[in-house]
Amino acid sequence: MGSPPRTLTSRDLARLAGVSQSTVSRVLTNSPRVNAETRARVLKVLAESNYTPNAVARAMKTGRTDAVGVFMSRVTSPFHSTMLDLIGRKLSAHGLQMILWNVEHDPDEAAAGQAIQQRLVDGFVFTSATFTSRLHTLALSSGIPTVLLHRGIEELACDQVLGDNWQGARDLAAYLLRAGHLDIGLVTSPLSVSTARDREQGFRAVLAEAGITIRPSNVAVGGFSHQHGHAAARRMLSQNDPPTAIFAITDVLAFGVLDGARSLGVRVPDDLWVAGFDNTDMASWESFDLTTVDQPVGAIVDRGVDLLRRRIADPSAEPVVTRLPCDLVIRGSTAHTPVP
Amino acid sequence: MGSPPRTLTSRDLARLAGVSQSTVSRVLTNSPRVNAETRARVLKVLAESNYTPNAVARAMKTGRTDAVGVFMSRVTSPFHSTMLDLIGRKLSAHGLQMILWNVEHDPDEAAAGQAIQQRLVDGFVFTSATFTSRLHTLALSSGIPTVLLHRGIEELACDQVLGDNWQGARDLAAYLLRAGHLDIGLVTSPLSVSTARDREQGFRAVLAEAGITIRPSNVAVGGFSHQHGHAAARRMLSQNDPPTAIFAITDVLAFGVLDGARSLGVRVPDDLWVAGFDNTDMASWESFDLTTVDQPVGAIVDRGVDLLRRRIADPSAEPVVTRLPCDLVIRGSTAHTPVP
Repeated sequence: MGSPPRTLTSRDLARLAGVSQSTVSRVLTNSPRVNAETRARVLKVLAESNYTPNAVARAMKTGRTDAVGVFMSRVTSPFHSTMLDLIGRKLSAHGLQMILWNVEHDPDEAAAGQAIQQRLVDGFVFTSATFTSRLHTLALSSGIPTVLLHRGIEELACDQVLGDNWQGARDLAAYLLRAGHLDIGLVTSPLSVSTARDREQGFRAVLAEAGITIRPSNVAVGGFSHQHGHAAARRMLSQNDPPTAIFAITDVLAFGVLDGARSLGVRVPDDLWVAGFDNTDMASWESFDLTTVDQPVGAIVDRGVDLLRRRIADPSAEPVVTRLPCDLVIRGSTAHTPVP
Repeated sequence: MGSPPRTLTSRDLARLAGVSQSTVSRVLTNSPRVNAETRARVLKVLAESNYTPNAVARAMKTGRTDAVGVFMSRVTSPFHSTMLDLIGRKLSAHGLQMILWNVEHDPDEAAAGQAIQQRLVDGFVFTSATFTSRLHTLALSSGIPTVLLHRGIEELACDQVLGDNWQGARDLAAYLLRAGHLDIGLVTSPLSVSTARDREQGFRAVLAEAGITIRPSNVAVGGFSHQHGHAAARRMLSQNDPPTAIFAITDVLAFGVLDGARSLGVRVPDDLWVAGFDNTDMASWESFDLTTVDQPVGAIVDRGVDLLRRRIADPSAEPVVTRLPCDLVIRGSTAHTPVP
């Protein structure tokens, strides 16, 4: 009635094949010091046990784990869950397992750092690199192939695939200016990640070129939650001179702005224009109908995983940093002014 | 200039320690056939290499991988991404890595089946068990500790933690009947998963007890997408005698129903009541303000991972099936009729 062994260890194999454990170890490590008959016996036991060769033993033998570690945060945000879905699909298509570390669950980065040192995987994908984290540096210095997706770090010489957040935000600012908006609100987050920094700076740069600065009372700095967008909109729109348009640096923040406006009876786009960034699926739903900037998440993931596989095959390849264009998508949360 | 070895194999260790590879294997498998001086030398090399003992070697030695495999589908749905986030947090708190298999990416289940046979993990969590899949059976027959969360399979003798979907849907139906609704629409999915089946059957049972059946033209069977809810609502609401209330078996389907109604100018709750199931965070946003049934996802994940850890420690423990109550949450998508 005993249940089968949880993992087929060399001890189990040795027992089943009637050989010593060190003989099993020799077979698993392809040592020449095992005679053909014994090797055949051990492999026969493996086959008869209806096990494919134990992954642990295989990793021991080949130095490959066929697994890729993904460091991500905020898997509950629609943009990140879409990216996660696409990464999993792409890895799966290449026969690679995905080990997922949610770095939010590990604020002191101890478990993630240990995971890097334990060399559990053939490569790493970072989607949530921050300027303040040491994890990507640790990963790179470990020599394990590593690619940064979505968020980049300029000074790192490593493969990176990013949307051109700076250009996307510039295009959006130019569109709002052309439509006559002079008093614009900004809902953003601390500039510790490249996406937030590039979107805010690109947006402000175009306004500055037109001689416009954003009033401090029209700037809200917080996290990435719907709640932050909601509270920011309610505060800005309760002023005597509310902004006529609000740019939120992610779609989820913009959904919060829309709901905050709705809660005050402010009509969009009649009284207020709202724009986001990401072009999540939800942005096209009637509830939001959100003008936003499209991040080409499919292409980011495709190219990123391709770069990682290239580097696993050839660790000495020159690092490549790719920025993909981000297109403006105009919907009903701004008046349907055609882009000239 | 050579990069460090990708994984510290027994071959690397042997080279660095100046011993044979089979000696390294003996040290790693705790064989008594290694003298103390040699063992110390190998372990010193391990320590000096600034590696924590290689996870692969450790797994080989202990038979544990400290990793848990999670089989999930639809990570882009807000309910599932929340569940994923909670599972990751809970596993991480217990020092366990998460290997994520998205079963949607593997329609013939070949890769997932192989993963089970390869014994990569100490245990499995299924959140997306379907009556037609063979994966959970394969996992259970492999002897690897396995728990089903969220979706169950009655006839399986294994640990399961589920919301009481049947009871939750009954309470919702009773609420709609008490408010006088006699002509109710149902947006559902094929009954190949326990959640869909229990929600639909519980809902229909209460209506049947009151002598009410749902007209076939008021039933829409499809997938789990916003698009399905949207199309279903537009079709039902374009009839000469549209339903006065629609129950969608998930929040995302209900969001689609709300947006479909909005696209036709049907006012909620004045002309139509809408209710969902899950109580995702988004259900409370002003855009939706959705009456729904709360799934206690935090408690489902907590108890489920606890059961899995119990079973890893004691594979012979009696299987436990837990159903947690699901409470009705009334919001603005139905008139604010107090529950008696």
